[in-house]
Formats: sequence, C-alpha cells, structure tokens
Amino acid sequence: MYIMQDTEFFNFSLDSVLLANYVKITPKIKTIMDIGCGNAPIPLILSTKTNAKIIGVEIQKDIFDLATESIKINNKENQIEIINEDIKNVYANMESDSVDIITCNPPYFKYLENSNVNENVQKTIARHEKMLDLENVFKISKKLLKNNGSIYMVHRPERLIEIIKIMLENNIEPKTIKLVHPQVDKEANILLIRGVKNGKSGLKVESPIISHLDNGDYTDEIRNFFE
Amino acid sequence: MYIMQDTEFFNFSLDSVLLANYVKITPKIKTIMDIGCGNAPIPLILSTKTNAKIIGVEIQKDIFDLATESIKINNKENQIEIINEDIKNVYANMESDSVDIITCNPPYFKYLENSNVNENVQKTIARHEKMLDLENVFKISKKLLKNNGSIYMVHRPERLIEIIKIMLENNIEPKTIKLVHPQVDKEANILLIRGVKNGKSGLKVESPIISHLDNGDYTDEIRNFFE
Repeated sequence: MYIMQDTEFFNFSLDSVLLANYVKITPKIKTIMDIGCGNAPIPLILSTKTNAKIIGVEIQKDIFDLATESIKINNKENQIEIINEDIKNVYANMESDSVDIITCNPPYFKYLENSNVNENVQKTIARHEKMLDLENVFKISKKLLKNNGSIYMVHRPERLIEIIKIMLENNIEPKTIKLVHPQVDKEANILLIRGVKNGKSGLKVESPIISHLDNGDYTDEIRNFFE
Repeated sequence: MYIMQDTEFFNFSLDSVLLANYVKITPKIKTIMDIGCGNAPIPLILSTKTNAKIIGVEIQKDIFDLATESIKINNKENQIEIINEDIKNVYANMESDSVDIITCNPPYFKYLENSNVNENVQKTIARHEKMLDLENVFKISKKLLKNNGSIYMVHRPERLIEIIKIMLENNIEPKTIKLVHPQVDKEANILLIRGVKNGKSGLKVESPIISHLDNGDYTDEIRNFFE
C-alpha cells in the first residue's frame, strides 16, 4: 500500500495504524466513516479488511488532495470516498442512524486563543481542537451511528475521563479500552477506546500493547501492523 | 503481621493488599479512613507505612470482632481504631474536610432483590452492594476528604465507567488508574483508582501489574507485597 505524505503537513502516525487495527470488522458492516481522515491512512488500512463503503472527511484541501491521490494509486476509488468539507456541515445533511462504524484520530490538544500552536496552519488544525473537538465528534456519532454501532477513537490517556464523560452525555457507552505502554513498566501514552451507541454498561480493559523493546525498536506486535 | 480470619466469612484478598500498597503515603498524611474495613487488612498494612491515625469502619459485628483482635495482636490499638457501625451513620456525625485519605475495597456486585447472593449473610454484605454502594462511598468521600485529599479504591474494571461517572458527580477527579492483568496478554481483572477531591482534570494510566506467571504462580511483583 502507498500513502502520499507531505512532510510539511502532518505525517500519518503509529496512532492511525493502531486505531485501524483496533477496529473489529464483521460481515454485517456496510458503512464506515473516518472523521478527520488526513491523508487517509485509516480508510486505506480498513479497505484491506472489509468491502464496506468507507467515507473519509477532511476539511483541509491540501491534505484532501494527498488523500485522493493515495486512493487513486491504490485503486480504491470504488470503495473509499473522501469529502473535502467540514464534518459539521457533512453530518448535518446526512441521514441519522446510517453508519455502522465511525473512526476518529482527532486533534489531541485543547485549542486556546493563546495556545502555543504550530505556525503551520495544517499542523495546527490536525493537532489542536480548533476545528473539531470531542463534543463535535460524539455529537456527530450520536446522530450518524446506527443503534449499537461503534465509534473507535485513539487519543491520549490523559484525556480519558473527559472522553468518557462526553461519550455518556451522548448515549455512547464505553465498552472496551486498550492501552499502549512504551514498555511494560512505563505509563500508557496511547489510548484506544470503543464506544457503542445506546450500549449496555460494562467495560473490558483489554490486554495492553507494549510498543517498544529495551533497545528502542518496535516490538513484534507493533511491527506486525506495518506488514 | 497477623490477621485474624474466619473462613466462614470473607477472607481478605489480594485486592486489599494491592490497594494498601497503591496508597501513596507522605509525611503530611494525618488521618486515614478505610470504609468497610473487614478484618482490617488495609489499616494493618498501612500502619507499617505511616504513623497517621487510621480509622476503619465495619458494619458487621462478627467481622469487627476479628478486626479488633488482629489489631490487638499486632499492638496497633494506639494507631488504629475500628468502629462497628454503618458508615452512613458514622459520616453524618463527622466533621467535613477532616480526612486526608480514604481507602475502600467495596462490595463488587450490584444487589438486586433477586440476586443470586450468598446464603451466608456476611459474605452477601461483603460482596453485594446491599449496605454500601458506589454512590454512598463517593458521597461520603466528598464530605469527609480535605480539599485535594485522595480516595483510593479497588474494584473490577468492568465497573470503571460507573465509578468515573459517580466520582465526577461528587467533584472527585480520577487522577490515576492502575490495572492488574493476570498475564500480559489477558484482559485486566483488577482496577486500582485514585480520585482527588476538587482535583484538576488529567489522568495517568500507570504501568500495569502482571499478577501471574505462565505456571500460575504469583509474579515477583505480587510476591513482594506479601513480604
């Protein structure tokens, strides 16, 4: 698989790969939406695992162009559609209860007027909650997901409590959590979470992923995701 | 250390040992309260780490008697006080903002009129939320803890979402989580969580504890807690 990147922008990361591999695909899945898809790593990885229709939404024109190019190179135009639009406008015009799975690797940092943001506007939008925040993501998910549909998100463990709170406010029940620790004796630095629209309460904390060996290399578990 | 147990009742468990060892003691800690202390394993372990006054509250007379006996055998009568009373009555008469640390290994299971509860009433009260539920624990903590005081709880990961929700409703901010996995490739079966009264948001998920070796023995990390 080829993914077009521009190192001036925001490179696709381990986080997207982890999220795409966290998604549980079943034959029933017909429609998947990736909110803030960037250069489309998540749609492209998912397209190797399912024949479902995959819609990616990316607000930034330059990054949308890279996504479109990647999809063309990989001959996935029939399966993956990328929309160059603010998700807040896209979802307003979409039918409710129409999506089986939503994925989202959102901006991780709060955006404050005096935030020490990147000078590069693309990176600022990708990393800071300037155009998309947790409230948006879960409000959108509440509308678009089918009953019992899942949203999968990757984020920083630091913001887990806020994520849970906003999920619950939108009738999305956190059902599974998976934590990534750089080493088994280090605190978690990546959070994977699955919430289910109108799901019953009861959480599973899955086995952790240990990402690095003592020598700094990726563990086999991580390397396998890149093969 | 000697802890009196009666196998007819509810034996103190790994969970209490893990919780007692999760508590962070500093010289500033003056008062600790253990809610539903059983035969007092948590007060006894904590007494080896601090000179703070430790109050245990246990509703069940027979178990209170065992706790009292254990404290006498260990010569801890000057440091540990066990109260044989419903915590809901105890806390109503206590001064607010008076406790530095609360610990709680509560009943894990919801109590329903038709619950498949233990015939043994002691075990039912220890395991099912008949006399003490999460709402009680955090309402009590909200009143009794000093500003920025901590509650430490051990529970099942399955109920983490509910725990977080009720903590937030009582202005207790979840600050650290530690998960115990039987093996590194198994889901978590024990949850340790610390909440801070009026704390700022921002969570740390600490390194996991792996409790068992492949052959079923405890790992060194766990064995060290028993030494």
